[in-house]
Amino acid sequence: MTDINQLSPWPLLQAHHRKLTTTALRDLFAQDAARFEKLSLRLPGMLADFSKNHITEETLGLLVSLARAAGLEKRRDAMLSGAKINATENRAVLHTALRAAADADIRVDGENVVPAVHETLKRMADFSEAVRGGAWKGHTGKDITDIVNIGIGGSSLGPQLACEALSAFHHPRLRAHYVANVEASDLAAALARVNPETTLFIVASKTFTTAETMQNANIARAWLVAHYKGDEAAVARHFVAASTNAQAVAAFGIAPENMFPFQDWVGGRYSVWSSIGLSVMLMIGAEKFGEMLAGGRDMDAHFKSAPLEKNLPVLLGLIGLWHRNFYNYPALAVIPYHASLRRLPAFLQQLDMESNGKRVMQDGKTVAVATGPIIFGEPGTDAQHSFFQWLHQSPDVVPVDFIVSAKPTDGSPAQQNMLLANCLAQSAALMAGQANTAEPHRHFTGNRPSTTFMLDALTPYTLGLLLAMYEHKVFVQGVLWCVNSFDQWGVELGKVLAKGLEPEIAGTAPASAERDSSTAGLIAHIRNQS
Amino acid sequence: MTDINQLSPWPLLQAHHRKLTTTALRDLFAQDAARFEKLSLRLPGMLADFSKNHITEETLGLLVSLARAAGLEKRRDAMLSGAKINATENRAVLHTALRAAADADIRVDGENVVPAVHETLKRMADFSEAVRGGAWKGHTGKDITDIVNIGIGGSSLGPQLACEALSAFHHPRLRAHYVANVEASDLAAALARVNPETTLFIVASKTFTTAETMQNANIARAWLVAHYKGDEAAVARHFVAASTNAQAVAAFGIAPENMFPFQDWVGGRYSVWSSIGLSVMLMIGAEKFGEMLAGGRDMDAHFKSAPLEKNLPVLLGLIGLWHRNFYNYPALAVIPYHASLRRLPAFLQQLDMESNGKRVMQDGKTVAVATGPIIFGEPGTDAQHSFFQWLHQSPDVVPVDFIVSAKPTDGSPAQQNMLLANCLAQSAALMAGQANTAEPHRHFTGNRPSTTFMLDALTPYTLGLLLAMYEHKVFVQGVLWCVNSFDQWGVELGKVLAKGLEPEIAGTAPASAERDSSTAGLIAHIRNQS
Repeated sequence: MTDINQLSPWPLLQAHHRKLTTTALRDLFAQDAARFEKLSLRLPGMLADFSKNHITEETLGLLVSLARAAGLEKRRDAMLSGAKINATENRAVLHTALRAAADADIRVDGENVVPAVHETLKRMADFSEAVRGGAWKGHTGKDITDIVNIGIGGSSLGPQLACEALSAFHHPRLRAHYVANVEASDLAAALARVNPETTLFIVASKTFTTAETMQNANIARAWLVAHYKGDEAAVARHFVAASTNAQAVAAFGIAPENMFPFQDWVGGRYSVWSSIGLSVMLMIGAEKFGEMLAGGRDMDAHFKSAPLEKNLPVLLGLIGLWHRNFYNYPALAVIPYHASLRRLPAFLQQLDMESNGKRVMQDGKTVAVATGPIIFGEPGTDAQHSFFQWLHQSPDVVPVDFIVSAKPTDGSPAQQNMLLANCLAQSAALMAGQANTAEPHRHFTGNRPSTTFMLDALTPYTLGLLLAMYEHKVFVQGVLWCVNSFDQWGVELGKVLAKGLEPEIAGTAPASAERDSSTAGLIAHIRNQS
Repeated sequence: MTDINQLSPWPLLQAHHRKLTTTALRDLFAQDAARFEKLSLRLPGMLADFSKNHITEETLGLLVSLARAAGLEKRRDAMLSGAKINATENRAVLHTALRAAADADIRVDGENVVPAVHETLKRMADFSEAVRGGAWKGHTGKDITDIVNIGIGGSSLGPQLACEALSAFHHPRLRAHYVANVEASDLAAALARVNPETTLFIVASKTFTTAETMQNANIARAWLVAHYKGDEAAVARHFVAASTNAQAVAAFGIAPENMFPFQDWVGGRYSVWSSIGLSVMLMIGAEKFGEMLAGGRDMDAHFKSAPLEKNLPVLLGLIGLWHRNFYNYPALAVIPYHASLRRLPAFLQQLDMESNGKRVMQDGKTVAVATGPIIFGEPGTDAQHSFFQWLHQSPDVVPVDFIVSAKPTDGSPAQQNMLLANCLAQSAALMAGQANTAEPHRHFTGNRPSTTFMLDALTPYTLGLLLAMYEHKVFVQGVLWCVNSFDQWGVELGKVLAKGLEPEIAGTAPASAERDSSTAGLIAHIRNQS
């Protein structure tokens, strides 16, 4: 495997970077009145404005040649065609198959995976319509009013984001709740808000063995059965599963037809499009869920066929790499100017950092350059009143992704105009700055890059576009850094250690003499308190 | 003003750093069985374990000498005594006075500020007890069931954090909602959940002119009055204010006795202890709110009197500076192992990044070193299933603050033991790592620092300890970097630009020819859509 900094365009990019850094962003705008036209991209449903980044058409040309040298197109086609590109787990990577058209043909081990996807979608749609329409009742014959999704990581972040983002499309009778944490207050808060006779629990765990999820699912199950005075038959009316472990699901008391499966080629952080998205479909209906899939599908088609020079996820990934490896920016701030997108930063934190927070290449060698950035963010305008001070005046620079809608989902034009004005003002201020040598604390250096994504409006379709765009951006960067973006071995060690520590903390096993003094001291402190 | 890297201990720290980096964290533990005892600190209610950071007693000694050389004690005493240390705004910095005992004497311009603080606390308590006890009724004589806090930045993040953190202590009849964003869905979601006849709105804005807050307050007011068919008298029964602008508050329709003031020496990000915390007091009662103040007060006393070598906020600040300026870590991850502390990272993001995200010293010179880090985080165990991959295996290193309780607020011991085991396992794994040369993707370098804060339990008192600890940590770092931690001029430029852009976006003013082509292009795109 060739280190990215050994590819022939790399030294050209280094030289170009040295030259470009001497020109401030505001001067790049002054030099070229057509900068916005040249460095923005329109797709049906959204516009992406890259012009406030420290790039020129020459930069993009060089970056695209780097992508070509890294074999991006070949890797992309391999992923989309079902090749087992997740080598450490010997799996295909086919979240794109989850949104493929019914007549598509995508093969894994010789078998077309699309029919099973659409069969599950059909079963999810039938179930959703039964719950929404009232045909599905609770154990005492009442309509369902509350959906409680019990899942963690990708089984929580994606569905919660999509559910909240599309709150304007919710069924009026239904409310959704997301329980992830094993810490007791998470489940307790949800249970305090719902009525056991009108609540549907979704247990979302591929293996049906995820420690936190099963702990919470078992407590919720006991709570329900206690309400029904021990009548276990109630479980089948109030629990369904997004899982593949038929045996464990049946043992829990969930009917086989209420287990909605997905495949081993769906990574957790890419699973909102699968049966893990059942809570979303219940809230917005199968038709709207289909529109979200269509947004993802259209982004896939664009990613697959647009020339790299005009390919949205490719350019986004390459500019991110430019920021990371040439400007050494440590992080990316994600600022959605929409309160309903409040979980987008947390979703992208997982998507990006779990995918590309890696230090070895696919061949086992250490990566020669920095890989995935820190992702953080909060909604605007809120964040303007918290950490934007840092974005404007810290010695460190962090690029920003602004996400905003041209049209409001609802609400008054006055609110939307104020919102848009704030979003545009921030990117303009970061870019241009404002000199004030007399009062240095009021001096703005500017020259701080950002990208603005403007959706026509926040709808299931544009949400699908947006999420698939970021998925492919992460893929692009992973290919260039030669990391496996689809495994997550870094989470294993902590899991193993936790299993060993739990009995020592509970006092059911003696304290191990091999613990470091910090761990031993903390355990002793806990034991002293109980 | 002396640059920090010109103080005499600096080169000693550089030499010490060069030496210390050659020893892995796990070897520091192997070399000294008493490491935990030496590098942890116990206060009533909490324990802080610094031992998993790349420090020794020698490091702390050198850092403390740096703090002394920077005049930390003198600056601390100046703040606590009411000196006008916020020079760019000519203001004292006295959030500590908000939690001072009734008989304390803290003077600003010769006047003791404590009596007014306690008078406001008394009025808040009387009002809270009236609402909680049912003496205060809505316009149609019904008990209040919902509190809607309308405020942004510090007028939202602190109260929301404290309210959620202390959910175990909420009045059973009351629910709290926090509306910050001018984006329409934020207020709309809250209004959809409440009944105008049983809802109390708190408008939290020092000046009563904050653009987003007044936009939302006016819409909420119109919604209420519309429900009462134009009867404006209802406003006085359903709106109160945390503000100092008596005239504007009265014009809004709020009775003078229902305006709860605070002073110009209370910064927004330090205001949860003031009348901005009214929503918290309504939810948990005046007695529990007083316990939170007591926690803050006890941390203040510790900060004021403990020797720097055993001073919790001082050590925390110095280790953070050690990470930032010697190890060049760009960020700090804050991971509360408690679902109810989900907003702690966002709160600390404002507290830290708005305070120390500065590039000039108090004398106007550019700071010679890096200042405040990026703060980000999500609750554990959730984050273990998202970005912890990055923390364990990214080429970049980011230190972690773990916050966890020894005892659960409620819930089963099984959940709490699993939670604690996970928290301790993560810090142990980050510290020690695990070699695996045969499978490089399963190799853990370890040597990744963290600090663990273990509360006895999450209560109003320990929350007060924790928040005041972080406030003083930020202060310590600000003193060493010579920045003004208490202004926020970096947010001004965007505000000014937004005011100018809004009429252009609305189409009530012609597009300015002076806009950069990106801003102009985005405005044209918005106008084309409407």
